[in-house]
Amino acid sequence: MTTRVQLLKEYQELNESSHSTVDGPVSPLEFMRMVHTSRPVLFQNCPLPLRQEWTDEYLATTVGEIDVSVTPDGRADALVDIDDKTYFAEPLVERMSMKDFLTRLDSNDHTNEILYLQSQNDNLDYGSRSDTGDFARIRTDIPPDIHWASAALGRQPDAVNIWIGSDKSVTSVHSDPYENVYAVIRGAKIFTLFPPTEGWCLQEREYPHARWIRDSSGQLCLKPTADQTVRWSSIRDPTDPPPLTRPVTVLVRRGEMLYLPAGWWHYVQQVSNRTIAVNYWYDLEYQGHNWLFLSYLRSLGLSDEK
Amino acid sequence: MTTRVQLLKEYQELNESSHSTVDGPVSPLEFMRMVHTSRPVLFQNCPLPLRQEWTDEYLATTVGEIDVSVTPDGRADALVDIDDKTYFAEPLVERMSMKDFLTRLDSNDHTNEILYLQSQNDNLDYGSRSDTGDFARIRTDIPPDIHWASAALGRQPDAVNIWIGSDKSVTSVHSDPYENVYAVIRGAKIFTLFPPTEGWCLQEREYPHARWIRDSSGQLCLKPTADQTVRWSSIRDPTDPPPLTRPVTVLVRRGEMLYLPAGWWHYVQQVSNRTIAVNYWYDLEYQGHNWLFLSYLRSLGLSDEK
Repeated sequence: MTTRVQLLKEYQELNESSHSTVDGPVSPLEFMRMVHTSRPVLFQNCPLPLRQEWTDEYLATTVGEIDVSVTPDGRADALVDIDDKTYFAEPLVERMSMKDFLTRLDSNDHTNEILYLQSQNDNLDYGSRSDTGDFARIRTDIPPDIHWASAALGRQPDAVNIWIGSDKSVTSVHSDPYENVYAVIRGAKIFTLFPPTEGWCLQEREYPHARWIRDSSGQLCLKPTADQTVRWSSIRDPTDPPPLTRPVTVLVRRGEMLYLPAGWWHYVQQVSNRTIAVNYWYDLEYQGHNWLFLSYLRSLGLSDEK
Repeated sequence: MTTRVQLLKEYQELNESSHSTVDGPVSPLEFMRMVHTSRPVLFQNCPLPLRQEWTDEYLATTVGEIDVSVTPDGRADALVDIDDKTYFAEPLVERMSMKDFLTRLDSNDHTNEILYLQSQNDNLDYGSRSDTGDFARIRTDIPPDIHWASAALGRQPDAVNIWIGSDKSVTSVHSDPYENVYAVIRGAKIFTLFPPTEGWCLQEREYPHARWIRDSSGQLCLKPTADQTVRWSSIRDPTDPPPLTRPVTVLVRRGEMLYLPAGWWHYVQQVSNRTIAVNYWYDLEYQGHNWLFLSYLRSLGLSDEK
């Protein structure tokens, strides 16, 4: 048995293919134990203390212009086949008003373009607390951190992001080097999760980079980026699990939060036409050997025999 | 570069070859962070609350008969060469009074035998709290656990042991699957520590098992055990560090405690003629992938090319 198959099987023997569920928030110590165990946890009855309900009307009147990801298929940061070649494609990013964005999210307009607000760049911008960010006026509606997570880890989040989309948008499978606390504010999301030991089954490969642009007629078309590649999973639909894997599926509903441990692979679907979420990314611990193992496990996916 | 060399070097790049030092006890949350980071920590000004000072006189009059390890060289559970063959040798265990033990510890008697109280079998026996254990009468002098460690890990120690010896006894290099809090009560100990990533440099091999016994003339001699082998490090003196390793050396003095993370390799010397210590072994976390990595790293030491 190869090393990577052995590690995968030993992990599966020691760990169930399910997440645990906790009622309400936990103490910093309890959360720190969860981080050490590095297993996904669903927090129920644990809503963010929203000062204002984020209705469409409230968002449209309070938020101004925003950056929106535009793709033909709802898959931003994902593999796309064009002319027998596979690219890693980043979305077109277009500036529009929140009001237009919400209206277009609902319309099946002729272009069939799929919109998703997913800038992932700390768009809630608590770090600088600038008054000029896109979401400066709704930022004060929600807490700048998850207090029990910050107290546990002894630091503030590295980034806080807001995500707004419909059930047409899907996040392709990947992993992040962050401890992630993911809170759903409206709608619901389904996470398909793979432990770090199963990452190699997701077949990361180097793909040429491309970006969706508008051509002269205004249609979306893919433009390859010269000499740039991105390492990305080859698995398009991990809800049909690759051989040997035992994914953990978690439905996270309004008022619930998911602790998604650093290094876990995740594929995210939205199951309502208006899903709004806020996630908190905390730096993981680089001291000790935890990060080292995550990095090693990821390297196992880059060759065919290990 | 082989996998094992790469992991060792990456660990050394991310981590200093030194321990951290903390003044006094810590909160359960702070300790939990230390366990997650899995790096050694020296707690200073953190004495055990001894109800009675453990003088020789007090121990001799309070404790009755005890099991003592007897070897010709002070190395119990260690490699011994006899007739061009190397064995893993366990000590002779002899029953004697605490008074005789302490007297013989000081005397360079004609036999040159080295005595060490090191039964490692939960000899303080808090689990059963039986009234009949060897140390039942001094057990009440010290706490049954380190309260901030138990509160952090959410469990009581799996074993609590007392260790009494002179500077002639040395513990050969090995690792344990326990989070270890090691408190020195009299004297001092020097720990030579290797992170789990350097374990393969310590060259674990299978050695035939043997035990020290007394022959008909009363002399210690080594008796091989039929068909039994033990996996043990081939490195006799790791204070002369094997190639590539960067051991962490920690002097733990009276009134200090060492947090020795699970899976760290340790070699222990005593630097006073009467060193008394109590250690608390806590089960490590088997869920998640931490234990898996420790087990994998240990496996890297069993072959010559990995």
